[in-house]
Amino acid sequence: MGDEIEKVPILRLTEEGRNSIEDIVVREYPITIILNNEELVTMLCSPQDMDYLAVGFLFSEGLLESKDEIKNVLVDEKRGIVRVDTYEEKEVNNEFLFKRMITSGCGRGASFYRAADAKKRVKIESGTEISTHEVLLLMKEFQHRSEVFRETGGVHSAALCDTKNILVFKEDIGRHNAIDKIFGECVMKDIPTEGRIVVTSGRISSEILLKVARRDIPIIISKSAPTDLGVRLADELGITLFGFVRGKRINAYTNFWRIKGNGSR
Amino acid sequence: MGDEIEKVPILRLTEEGRNSIEDIVVREYPITIILNNEELVTMLCSPQDMDYLAVGFLFSEGLLESKDEIKNVLVDEKRGIVRVDTYEEKEVNNEFLFKRMITSGCGRGASFYRAADAKKRVKIESGTEISTHEVLLLMKEFQHRSEVFRETGGVHSAALCDTKNILVFKEDIGRHNAIDKIFGECVMKDIPTEGRIVVTSGRISSEILLKVARRDIPIIISKSAPTDLGVRLADELGITLFGFVRGKRINAYTNFWRIKGNGSR
Repeated sequence: MGDEIEKVPILRLTEEGRNSIEDIVVREYPITIILNNEELVTMLCSPQDMDYLAVGFLFSEGLLESKDEIKNVLVDEKRGIVRVDTYEEKEVNNEFLFKRMITSGCGRGASFYRAADAKKRVKIESGTEISTHEVLLLMKEFQHRSEVFRETGGVHSAALCDTKNILVFKEDIGRHNAIDKIFGECVMKDIPTEGRIVVTSGRISSEILLKVARRDIPIIISKSAPTDLGVRLADELGITLFGFVRGKRINAYTNFWRIKGNGSR
Repeated sequence: MGDEIEKVPILRLTEEGRNSIEDIVVREYPITIILNNEELVTMLCSPQDMDYLAVGFLFSEGLLESKDEIKNVLVDEKRGIVRVDTYEEKEVNNEFLFKRMITSGCGRGASFYRAADAKKRVKIESGTEISTHEVLLLMKEFQHRSEVFRETGGVHSAALCDTKNILVFKEDIGRHNAIDKIFGECVMKDIPTEGRIVVTSGRISSEILLKVARRDIPIIISKSAPTDLGVRLADELGITLFGFVRGKRINAYTNFWRIKGNGSR
């Protein structure tokens, strides 16, 4: 927690008056990812697990395929730099890099949501099933874990789960970053992702969907709303999408056959 | 509204059972911005006011400085393309473009939050003042206007206001886009922004702060949290920052001297 938040003096205003108090805000920290001495990107993140963020990002962007390619990962926290070196040289074509980088992050990019790109992906066939009760319990546990959010209201959370438990949990000011941190840790620690479940606090857009599909995740659960493209891709890629999981209600959008006790469609 | 949402069949699940119903989700639409025949960027947005989004984006990125530079703006809705042509050729250096694009959007980029960059900006001296009551009323009116959010929970809103009224209001799946749409309309319709107020539903990060500073806005009001960098930049740039405006309470973070009836600091 320590480094993710900062205390600031504020005025608390109401119609009745004002109070000088101290409040906490979430930190926003620039890190630069350097792959084999090439400066790839600088992004704003929460300054925790920056090694996992860098590795997860490189996998999401298709620049790494296996942990075995990685020679070392060095984090220079002070200067905000993560260096990832691979055994073999990586051809990072500038044109490609340019395109891909814009793609990532906040909804920029041409390639990801093109039908052709989604079509190239193999449909996820995992037989993992989950019940309404299990979805509600996972979300309850997930929200219980979101400490920084409770304190600052300023971060997103993501978790890798099985149907009963949270296995990996991360928070970050960026909803994409929180998911990259999860997958980065999975890569570094050889935690399998296939057949498992991702829970997220953030909106499920097409990019989040494709990030998750890339790790063979059959079920995604969100506290928030999906977009139309998120729903369409989940449908096509064989992913079961749950949104608006709040209180005792769930919206199921796609691939209902994974819902235990609710029959098939 | 029409184009911004789409109906989808869903299963509404509770512990008691399930219902097949129809629900609406927000649309996520890819548009490509072409400046003088050069393809600059493709981004995901809500398919409304794409001309304003393109113009606002180009201003935010520093690629346009004045409306007089613009020869025409053509929106091809079907193909998701906005063409902006200027009278004079624009030198869009690839290196620069690469850097800047990563910078924009979702918190990627080196230049924006560097102290040097913020220091180059002139401190905003505008004498606009606002009372607690006025902030609360503006937020109430703002939330009343957020139709798509109420229906789908999937968009951000932003507004340009004076101390009494909302002057321009936009919604978009991206919090950056909503603000670019506001400023794009201001540029195209010669609506002055200096001395006025921006209200946003989204988190106030360093990038949002710099976007707003670029338009000489002295006051920013958010329903959500600021980041530490957002607070620091608001302080340095002379912007009064209100966050967590919810119910009858407000957090004031910086430049308290613009708060009417609350004295100075």
